[in-house]
Amino acid sequence: MDLKTTHVWRRPTLGAVAALAGVSTATVSNALNGTGRVSEATRQRVIAAARELGHAPASTARAVASGSTGVLGLTMTTYGDLPVSYTEIPYYGQLALGAMAAAHERGYMLMVMPSSLSPWMWLSTPMDGVIHVGPRADDPVRSLLRERGIPIVSEGRPCRPCPGDAWVDADHDAGLRLALDHLAQAGARRIALTLPVHDDTYPHLVEQAYVSWCAERDVPILVERYASLPDYFTTEQTAAGLLLDRGPRPDAVVGVYSDSGHNILAAARHHGLRVPRDLLVACISEDPDYATTTPPVTAVSLRPDRVGEEAVDLLIALINERTGVDRRRLVQPELVLRRSTHGLSSSSPGSAG
Amino acid sequence: MDLKTTHVWRRPTLGAVAALAGVSTATVSNALNGTGRVSEATRQRVIAAARELGHAPASTARAVASGSTGVLGLTMTTYGDLPVSYTEIPYYGQLALGAMAAAHERGYMLMVMPSSLSPWMWLSTPMDGVIHVGPRADDPVRSLLRERGIPIVSEGRPCRPCPGDAWVDADHDAGLRLALDHLAQAGARRIALTLPVHDDTYPHLVEQAYVSWCAERDVPILVERYASLPDYFTTEQTAAGLLLDRGPRPDAVVGVYSDSGHNILAAARHHGLRVPRDLLVACISEDPDYATTTPPVTAVSLRPDRVGEEAVDLLIALINERTGVDRRRLVQPELVLRRSTHGLSSSSPGSAG
Repeated sequence: MDLKTTHVWRRPTLGAVAALAGVSTATVSNALNGTGRVSEATRQRVIAAARELGHAPASTARAVASGSTGVLGLTMTTYGDLPVSYTEIPYYGQLALGAMAAAHERGYMLMVMPSSLSPWMWLSTPMDGVIHVGPRADDPVRSLLRERGIPIVSEGRPCRPCPGDAWVDADHDAGLRLALDHLAQAGARRIALTLPVHDDTYPHLVEQAYVSWCAERDVPILVERYASLPDYFTTEQTAAGLLLDRGPRPDAVVGVYSDSGHNILAAARHHGLRVPRDLLVACISEDPDYATTTPPVTAVSLRPDRVGEEAVDLLIALINERTGVDRRRLVQPELVLRRSTHGLSSSSPGSAG
Repeated sequence: MDLKTTHVWRRPTLGAVAALAGVSTATVSNALNGTGRVSEATRQRVIAAARELGHAPASTARAVASGSTGVLGLTMTTYGDLPVSYTEIPYYGQLALGAMAAAHERGYMLMVMPSSLSPWMWLSTPMDGVIHVGPRADDPVRSLLRERGIPIVSEGRPCRPCPGDAWVDADHDAGLRLALDHLAQAGARRIALTLPVHDDTYPHLVEQAYVSWCAERDVPILVERYASLPDYFTTEQTAAGLLLDRGPRPDAVVGVYSDSGHNILAAARHHGLRVPRDLLVACISEDPDYATTTPPVTAVSLRPDRVGEEAVDLLIALINERTGVDRRRLVQPELVLRRSTHGLSSSSPGSAG
């Protein structure tokens, strides 16, 4: 048999290998794992049996019947076919690592795929299911996978909900409210928001949460939008600058993308404002650098590691056609308090600095 | 054709798809990527052509001839079949993310595999090559992959070098010397080392570097060893405590595993020693938590992201049988200075605290 041809990875049971090799399951385990005392002849017999059972060509009826590859795919197509190194963005990197640990714990491999809409990859890569991060409206990858009958779990709520959808998302409403409540407690009365323009659901969810929160408290709605592509360093700094030019000036600015804290700090410096004495700053981000900025920046963590873990859990349930599974799951964000929101000098003079 | 059977992912050229669909390559690109203006009928024709060319059963002679799956595997088997969530350890997580970004940039998928010696997975998962992290002496995974003719790049030098080896490793000698030189400059004269007991090459390389450095400067060699499995929290704290019990006491302790800084700080607290006034502490670690410990701990970063990137670069060169490739690559570590090594009170009184 040509070992270079492609085969499905099916996981035969210890019992099946033991029966074929004529040994106990304990011996199979020892032989395959290099533990205990097993003669070399027995080890070879066990490996031959494992190979025979686990190594049938994919085209055989048996392999098709079992069908399992042991592989879960993961990709992000939020930015279409732009070559985005998404795993270098802290949120996506931590999501991938969380999904990886959960997949490994359950005996699956995690195949992390490039951000690409190429149908070639989607049509022919062997996998049992896919975690689709940040799908767009009418995302072509979804129809390609549906055509193959491959289960999908989305990270992020689909733009247009369908009955069969399965998704895991951070509770963005709860996350933004954690930041806003904390800023209000720290003395802020005019809390502004910089908001990216993009057609995924995230900016809309954040905007809804912000507008509702302001309406509930009868405080002003202060929003500036910025273009998020190809990058948002300059555009968000400009948007934050426009907010700080307003009269009366906001006493806090919240940003919702990974680099927002850096961008708002830069705008504050440009306006000669000291954080947190003159202005409070917070953002939604997983970037560990905020622990060491000047000042360190308070951030909402969306817990992408837990989003990845829940997505794997749900995907494996779908692959195994488990019933009674919760197909829509929200992960609770956490607030990481740092000096950028220690309190305004006018409202709480003792706590500044 | 049953879409659930397994197929090799071959990447047909734009030209081949264009020729089959009877359109220009620009139209193929637009149709597959959702860019430009393409009628729905043309888009369907292009996708059908791409599907036909990229979707042949793996058993056909053509697929075997091209052989490519577009998949690079990655695993760690340092701890044998112990179910280690290795990607949750900062070094391995960052290595996986670095490899991921590099693979994606070159159009490959990265399949991250559980830490397992199971021959089933190794014998039958389709992949073009494997990055094998932390191989042990006589690692069974290596012979399984060699049997399949799959190229391997090791992270970490093999315990027993062979002529054909291809590996990428951090320059551990240079990394430890960065820490030792810095401690000597900060006033330390008796620099001790806590050393894990494990049969991979890392502890041996670190020990060699330490002993050579001490011999070159004619300073005392102060080493305590600790068991590294199943975990080293207690064992390393005990080892650090034994070092601090010695007379005369060391004025600096260096640890070489991810949690070593935490363990040595705990031992110092237990001995009533203040860091850095009474004792300097440094470690080799990628853990971002050292930025916010009390005090923050100076660490050598082995740049696992760059190790992962170099490993992907080398692996793709081997897969494509490129000649004149450097098969043994060292990545230069970096020192991240923090307060735990600001200087001893006796040698530089002004800088302590």
